[in-house]
Amino acid sequence: MSVPIVGIVGAGQLARMLYQAAIPLAIPIRLLAASETDSAARVAHDAATGAPDSIEALRGFAATCDVVTFETELVEPDQLHALEAAGVVLRPSAATLTVAVDKREQRAAMRRVGAPVPLHQEARTMRAVTEFAASSGWPVVLKTTRGGYDGRGVWIVGDEDEARAVVEGLTGRPLLVEEYCDIDAEFAVQVARRPGGEMVIYPAVDTVQRDGVFRESLAPSSLDASRTSHAARIATAIASEIDCVGMMAVEFFVAGGRLLTNELAVRPHNTAHYTIEGCVTSQFENHLRAVCDLPLGSTALTAPAVATVNVIGPDDGSDPATSLAGMLGVESAHVHLYGKAARPGRKLGHVTVCADSGDEAMARARSAAERVATGARGGGR
Amino acid sequence: MSVPIVGIVGAGQLARMLYQAAIPLAIPIRLLAASETDSAARVAHDAATGAPDSIEALRGFAATCDVVTFETELVEPDQLHALEAAGVVLRPSAATLTVAVDKREQRAAMRRVGAPVPLHQEARTMRAVTEFAASSGWPVVLKTTRGGYDGRGVWIVGDEDEARAVVEGLTGRPLLVEEYCDIDAEFAVQVARRPGGEMVIYPAVDTVQRDGVFRESLAPSSLDASRTSHAARIATAIASEIDCVGMMAVEFFVAGGRLLTNELAVRPHNTAHYTIEGCVTSQFENHLRAVCDLPLGSTALTAPAVATVNVIGPDDGSDPATSLAGMLGVESAHVHLYGKAARPGRKLGHVTVCADSGDEAMARARSAAERVATGARGGGR
Repeated sequence: MSVPIVGIVGAGQLARMLYQAAIPLAIPIRLLAASETDSAARVAHDAATGAPDSIEALRGFAATCDVVTFETELVEPDQLHALEAAGVVLRPSAATLTVAVDKREQRAAMRRVGAPVPLHQEARTMRAVTEFAASSGWPVVLKTTRGGYDGRGVWIVGDEDEARAVVEGLTGRPLLVEEYCDIDAEFAVQVARRPGGEMVIYPAVDTVQRDGVFRESLAPSSLDASRTSHAARIATAIASEIDCVGMMAVEFFVAGGRLLTNELAVRPHNTAHYTIEGCVTSQFENHLRAVCDLPLGSTALTAPAVATVNVIGPDDGSDPATSLAGMLGVESAHVHLYGKAARPGRKLGHVTVCADSGDEAMARARSAAERVATGARGGGR
Repeated sequence: MSVPIVGIVGAGQLARMLYQAAIPLAIPIRLLAASETDSAARVAHDAATGAPDSIEALRGFAATCDVVTFETELVEPDQLHALEAAGVVLRPSAATLTVAVDKREQRAAMRRVGAPVPLHQEARTMRAVTEFAASSGWPVVLKTTRGGYDGRGVWIVGDEDEARAVVEGLTGRPLLVEEYCDIDAEFAVQVARRPGGEMVIYPAVDTVQRDGVFRESLAPSSLDASRTSHAARIATAIASEIDCVGMMAVEFFVAGGRLLTNELAVRPHNTAHYTIEGCVTSQFENHLRAVCDLPLGSTALTAPAVATVNVIGPDDGSDPATSLAGMLGVESAHVHLYGKAARPGRKLGHVTVCADSGDEAMARARSAAERVATGARGGGR
């Protein structure tokens, strides 16, 4: 068996970390980048440029690869089905991606396997929203069914007026309306799955969102094993149900004592960046192994506790790369910078620390990630 | 402070692993490759082609970098001094490389810090060899002072006739003649050193050579701590003495109860490939940190035992990449393939396993590395 040429659609930081993981396995990688300055395109040997939602770009790109995978959900299911009909091997498949890119489809798949989910309903009109709120009570959560991520496309609305502003702004695009939950804890579970169904599951990892954006993770999860093992069973059931190939991440939360399944993604996910140093096999390596139909690697933790904190562009717009010395000065800090243009609030990297306790790991990871802002303020280092 | 553009002279597997380590730090890398198909040139975004011993190639290359480092000893010290005189920043410096590329200079530096070395002498003629052997007894070891590696340029000669064949074959090139030692154990110590002298030292690692070629390593060393800490003091003294910047590896052996210092290299070294997964900071990352004058990272082991076994091209000439599935089937095996053309006996990759005991780690690493030959024999997988 020879190793397939893997095409990755998209060239952001996920593709960059996939590229890094491909080097030791000598898996040949081609990228389809929107721009030559994309995070992964800056480091890859072989990057074509083209839009991930252009059928012509995808068709030309796929012709140079043995198997095509995705770091982005900005794809059009119809186009993917057309590619498969033309003989292109997509992993995950067009059918799997069709579920993953649409929150209604995600919820439907979750319900099919019996996963607990927040009360929700599709809503295209204010009337549907009002009816839902009449039974659930205000506030409610409104979500676009497609294209939302990092807090975009999600609104918590407290009354009819607020809801109307959102609904009118979306001019008929489909929405989900959901019960508002007072979240006690959030965590995620990741699974890697091969074409034949072989699966490995990563330990549950606690996650912290701020303003709807993932900021920090701590593995292993501090939640009860009964809860996290329930989540693990849900995640594997969903992966089988949607016939996922590659990595899949499922985000969960706990509210009022209930475990609820929130969203899923069929690609490497930022809640599992900790796996690069924190697990025997990273999510990036296991995604490639799965996509190439190679045996999956161990997901065991390499340390008692692993913390990861995002590096966010500081308010003054300075580049975290100028604070690299400060970050590397923190003991055992693994610094990852994505090579993206710095903008205030933009996710530009992450720091992972493995340690004997969660408190120690988190304190050091935060200390390193915060040196970006400090260093920048401290006089243009 | 902004991150310098690092030029790497040479594009073999060491440059490839340096490139991989540079990605998360977003350190911009340029390579000077002898050929576009070199191991590192296959994966790098930015590789120029040119000979590492051509002053024109080096000059043009250096003009595009902020700092230049080396993965090869196939350089000419005179040329490096000329580059430095022209303002090029070399790390390690021309003076350091002048020592490292010549075994006479290495031995002189070792003697200056009081390191124990085998009895030896420079020899250009048969008469010098015969005189040395008269006092040390046959056999003796003959070594070319430059260009030898992986068992090349080293001969154990049992009598005058064998010695003459070697000396005549070298037609006047300088030789070292050394006492022959019956080696009981071999190990290595690696150091990373910044321009200002800050140093970190890796744990001593046991090494196994076969036919003069490094094959296996096991960390931590099984030797007495008194012995390995003596070796660590020797290594740091040498690094300071030769003002090394970047990684330096020193190989030691134990013979008849004596600790003896053998050879050194001022670059990442195959005896420390285990550090990629086996230490908090790999030798490749610490080489880059040192070369960029960034804080050095922790060299602590990540597991109780770490074994690394080379992947050698099987006799039938098949490519280990065709056995990737078999290798990845071994639990917790970290497979590294260098993307080099397969040839019988050629070093084409390595496998590292972290485990609770040395026996377990070594058994699994060997099992994975040996699947190359097995897989190849087993019917062209």
